Amino acid sequence: MTIPTNDIAPSVTTGPLPASRKTYVAGALHPDIRVPMREIATHPTAGEGPLPVYDSSGPYTDPEAVIDVASGLPPLRRDWIMARGDVAGYAGRHVKPEDNGFVSGERLVVEFPVRAQPLRGTGGAAPTQLAYARAGIITPEMEFVAIRENQLREAGPVTRDGNDWGASIPDHVTPEFVRSEIAAGRAIIPANINHPELEPMIIGRNFLVKVNANMGTSAVTSSMEEEVEKLVWAIRWGADTVMDLSTGRNIHNTREWIIRNSPVPIGTVPIYQALEKVNGVAEDLTWEVFRDTLIEQAEQGVDYFTIHAGVRLHMVPMTVERVTGIVSRGGSIMAKWCLHHHRESFLYEHFEEICDICRQYDVSFSLGDGLRPGSISDANDAAQFAELETLGELTKIAWARDCQVMIEGPGHVAMHKIKENMDKQLECCHEAPFYTLGPLTTDIAPVYDHITSGIGAAMIGWFGCAMLCYVTPKEHLGLPDRDDVKTGVITYKIAAHAADLAKGLPGAQRRDDALSRARFEFRWEDQFNLSLDPETARDFHDQTLPKEAHKVAHFCSMCGPKFCSMKISHDIRAEAQKEGMATMAEKYREGGDLYVPVDSGEDG
Amino acid sequence: MTIPTNDIAPSVTTGPLPASRKTYVAGALHPDIRVPMREIATHPTAGEGPLPVYDSSGPYTDPEAVIDVASGLPPLRRDWIMARGDVAGYAGRHVKPEDNGFVSGERLVVEFPVRAQPLRGTGGAAPTQLAYARAGIITPEMEFVAIRENQLREAGPVTRDGNDWGASIPDHVTPEFVRSEIAAGRAIIPANINHPELEPMIIGRNFLVKVNANMGTSAVTSSMEEEVEKLVWAIRWGADTVMDLSTGRNIHNTREWIIRNSPVPIGTVPIYQALEKVNGVAEDLTWEVFRDTLIEQAEQGVDYFTIHAGVRLHMVPMTVERVTGIVSRGGSIMAKWCLHHHRESFLYEHFEEICDICRQYDVSFSLGDGLRPGSISDANDAAQFAELETLGELTKIAWARDCQVMIEGPGHVAMHKIKENMDKQLECCHEAPFYTLGPLTTDIAPVYDHITSGIGAAMIGWFGCAMLCYVTPKEHLGLPDRDDVKTGVITYKIAAHAADLAKGLPGAQRRDDALSRARFEFRWEDQFNLSLDPETARDFHDQTLPKEAHKVAHFCSMCGPKFCSMKISHDIRAEAQKEGMATMAEKYREGGDLYVPVDSGEDG
Repeated sequence: MTIPTNDIAPSVTTGPLPASRKTYVAGALHPDIRVPMREIATHPTAGEGPLPVYDSSGPYTDPEAVIDVASGLPPLRRDWIMARGDVAGYAGRHVKPEDNGFVSGERLVVEFPVRAQPLRGTGGAAPTQLAYARAGIITPEMEFVAIRENQLREAGPVTRDGNDWGASIPDHVTPEFVRSEIAAGRAIIPANINHPELEPMIIGRNFLVKVNANMGTSAVTSSMEEEVEKLVWAIRWGADTVMDLSTGRNIHNTREWIIRNSPVPIGTVPIYQALEKVNGVAEDLTWEVFRDTLIEQAEQGVDYFTIHAGVRLHMVPMTVERVTGIVSRGGSIMAKWCLHHHRESFLYEHFEEICDICRQYDVSFSLGDGLRPGSISDANDAAQFAELETLGELTKIAWARDCQVMIEGPGHVAMHKIKENMDKQLECCHEAPFYTLGPLTTDIAPVYDHITSGIGAAMIGWFGCAMLCYVTPKEHLGLPDRDDVKTGVITYKIAAHAADLAKGLPGAQRRDDALSRARFEFRWEDQFNLSLDPETARDFHDQTLPKEAHKVAHFCSMCGPKFCSMKISHDIRAEAQKEGMATMAEKYREGGDLYVPVDSGEDG
Repeated sequence: MTIPTNDIAPSVTTGPLPASRKTYVAGALHPDIRVPMREIATHPTAGEGPLPVYDSSGPYTDPEAVIDVASGLPPLRRDWIMARGDVAGYAGRHVKPEDNGFVSGERLVVEFPVRAQPLRGTGGAAPTQLAYARAGIITPEMEFVAIRENQLREAGPVTRDGNDWGASIPDHVTPEFVRSEIAAGRAIIPANINHPELEPMIIGRNFLVKVNANMGTSAVTSSMEEEVEKLVWAIRWGADTVMDLSTGRNIHNTREWIIRNSPVPIGTVPIYQALEKVNGVAEDLTWEVFRDTLIEQAEQGVDYFTIHAGVRLHMVPMTVERVTGIVSRGGSIMAKWCLHHHRESFLYEHFEEICDICRQYDVSFSLGDGLRPGSISDANDAAQFAELETLGELTKIAWARDCQVMIEGPGHVAMHKIKENMDKQLECCHEAPFYTLGPLTTDIAPVYDHITSGIGAAMIGWFGCAMLCYVTPKEHLGLPDRDDVKTGVITYKIAAHAADLAKGLPGAQRRDDALSRARFEFRWEDQFNLSLDPETARDFHDQTLPKEAHKVAHFCSMCGPKFCSMKISHDIRAEAQKEGMATMAEKYREGGDLYVPVDSGEDG
């Protein structure tokens, strides 16, 4: 292609969030790593300096970074990968017409201008984070996520407040702790060796709860330009990973643009593209088509694959009496294939070969819940739990081949069944990380399913789920646009953060405390800037009180100037400071004419 | 006033929701009662007839009803109240200039055109639902709510699925059960004898979880017209009660318009108006001003009063070291008064006299949590729980005087502390109904606090909270507009419904099942109509697939026509029906060349 890149590259949103500055923290074991953080400045009167927060937004929010979408992000992991000496470049698979749905000419999404030779493992060694962890090696990726998880909180004992339901959350995340969690299979770092642009992140019950955002073109709508911007937009608001669920045409070329510009792990459901290659006829799927698709995507750098290998033939009849049958696209494709061919799926039968492919590139498994419940009525039924048990068996097979694994979960589940789900997953799947969609806690609120599911997501995150797949307001109704993506991501950041607080994750409450102090001290600008959505917070405030003077006013529109509870609390505090808190408390405990003794319990 | 009513009456939203029809159910004990329901029609192919749902929207959604805002709603309870023979009309208090903040002329909100003589109890008898219940009387109000709670589900044993945490939810709500719950103090029917327009509803742990919407003018913004429409708008989307939290001027006249047009209970915080009467200077408040305000509001028909009598002098120093001090407006006013006067508040000291006033009109207590936590850091602290214990003492005092009582709760509480809150309330307050604001499960998401709090609300509703006070997207930032009110109400309907499902409330799942069947059968119109927000659901669908033909299409925009999991499930079901489910299941359990035996657990 000779088209100049400035003609073909989509435009994306760049620049820092308000009052925010990108900083980088170097490693100790690996001094060349640069772990990104975001520092949110607070007003000098706060006397507490900037607050460092986790930053998934990549170089797009760094004014120093040169962003050129047609070149892709810098391959920051390349040297780490090559230094390990266990991978080599090779010619790689040629792009075939079916990879892009047989489109050509103007309808073909332009190829990404730069093509790097793919890498794969050489010899018998597995270039996976799990293999390294088991060998006692602390990789740069592991130190990177350790620094990232701590968000610059100090090492050493911390006050713990929370209930972690038997997790083993450390006071401080060390690189060795990361290694040990990965070695035990309790956490994964999805990081394909062909995605060197990645800023590593970790998914596990003893770390911050993560959020995934789904996007992707469909046969009905969407374009490559929109998808790249949606990616950048989703990570700006906090998405930790992104799944490209494209169907229809141009899947290959669109995915290449996405991966080359993604600092977060990209997941896919390879069966979707495989199905496109056989013109949407599930029965025509073959192991060969699927295998070729896996290699195609692994060479591009997909970091995790959803594989619905747990849908087994004998489970299909268990779904027939359900209110909503099988609602997973991948699950229903495989069920149909199984019934038609009257045999176990090629995903199940060839699972070991799938592992061997994933192992060569360090593609993590996200074992799909093809039989997840699609309605409150179908939750926690025999089909769902039978599949979960199979996923546990498959986990052991993947682990035996040094592949990283997480497990996908539902779906639609009423609140009283959520903990049972989580507990059963931990038991059946040997503590492999759980990754759930929602769950939605009622069926009656299309338009608001980010909320119905945000409730379930917060709860299952608290109970031990490691990553929460977002649901947008368009769920069940249409494809999410840019606003929906933002709403979905922020709703899920709330759910994840609520879970972190309830688990007692050290340091999680720092941001709440900083924002609440700002609120109490009428530092309106700090209140906006410390929030998850500073611009909208400011806009909402200004709808009632638009003047700049109101940003320093010691009141707000709810009460008005005469009448503010926060202001009265300051008066009380001032009085206490004047005479001393202890004296004040003592005075009010005294008996006497005016005071009713404490605990006297009498009337009036 | 001689202004024709059509010149002064605000316009309000009327007409049924899509596919909905208002029906009325007569009583058995009291044949003249007409309990409103909403029937949502489903497509004939569904073969299941219309679904009856709870309907809080009042006559506004009944096309047969004549709506005249300047006349108010029909006084449907008048005859019931008079028939009991224990109340009498009297001249009542005259409206004073301070009732409306001393405004006059054009700035004065026009008086409501009709003035009825207020009623109060005569002799020693208390005309309260609690007194009747204790006397073994099943009032029309009690039968009304029994019919309303059942939503036309059949009497008799039901399949129960849920965890009610020790509640005593019956299979079928009988009038006698309602009576017994009220007699025990476990439920209330807020129903001032001067609010005959009310369609009775019940608040208690063994009934459907209810939702309150706050509104009200402030010194900074708002008008009477907006407030009346906000009321009608809030109940259209499902608000069960409305609190008028007006401050500033015109409080009295605005409230009269609201109550006369409200089919739901109206709550207030009388100290807000009392403070306006003393020009916003908390120290100048007196028992006399407050007492006069209580009578003023009781005569107008306010159904429940928030009274912050639990803020005691010795508790104030407990708040000084908090991150956000005292955030309750009422709580901070009383704290300031206590400190200034160096004595217990007049609310606490005169609590028995307050009871005697409430008793005469059957105004229910909503004992305010003046020391609720305003941040995650302050949750479940000594101040909060000390006040809760005092509220338990006050509950007994009110009960001794035949007054109905509920208890207000927080606030900001991380998920792991919510159950402790609920359990402590049940214990300290002798199972009086709990009524909480959220709680918000993080502090970091202004703009999304309907969501942060919806998570906590769903959970505390499940654990036993009887009514959830909504939070809108404007919380902490500004005053809610019409859109915010709708978003807040629907978010809280979701939380309440999620709680009903998790508690296993009989019949709660009928709407989920009906909507999920519609979803599975591609009845798009039914799916919209059965949802909480039909118009927006349709709009979201049409953004991607606008054509009418797509409303009967057996696919949606997520997958496109070739590729739909629901469609595949139908194929599977069709196959199962052809050969019989049992045969199908049996076939797939057979061993043989193709099938891997069940539970063999082998690889690949």
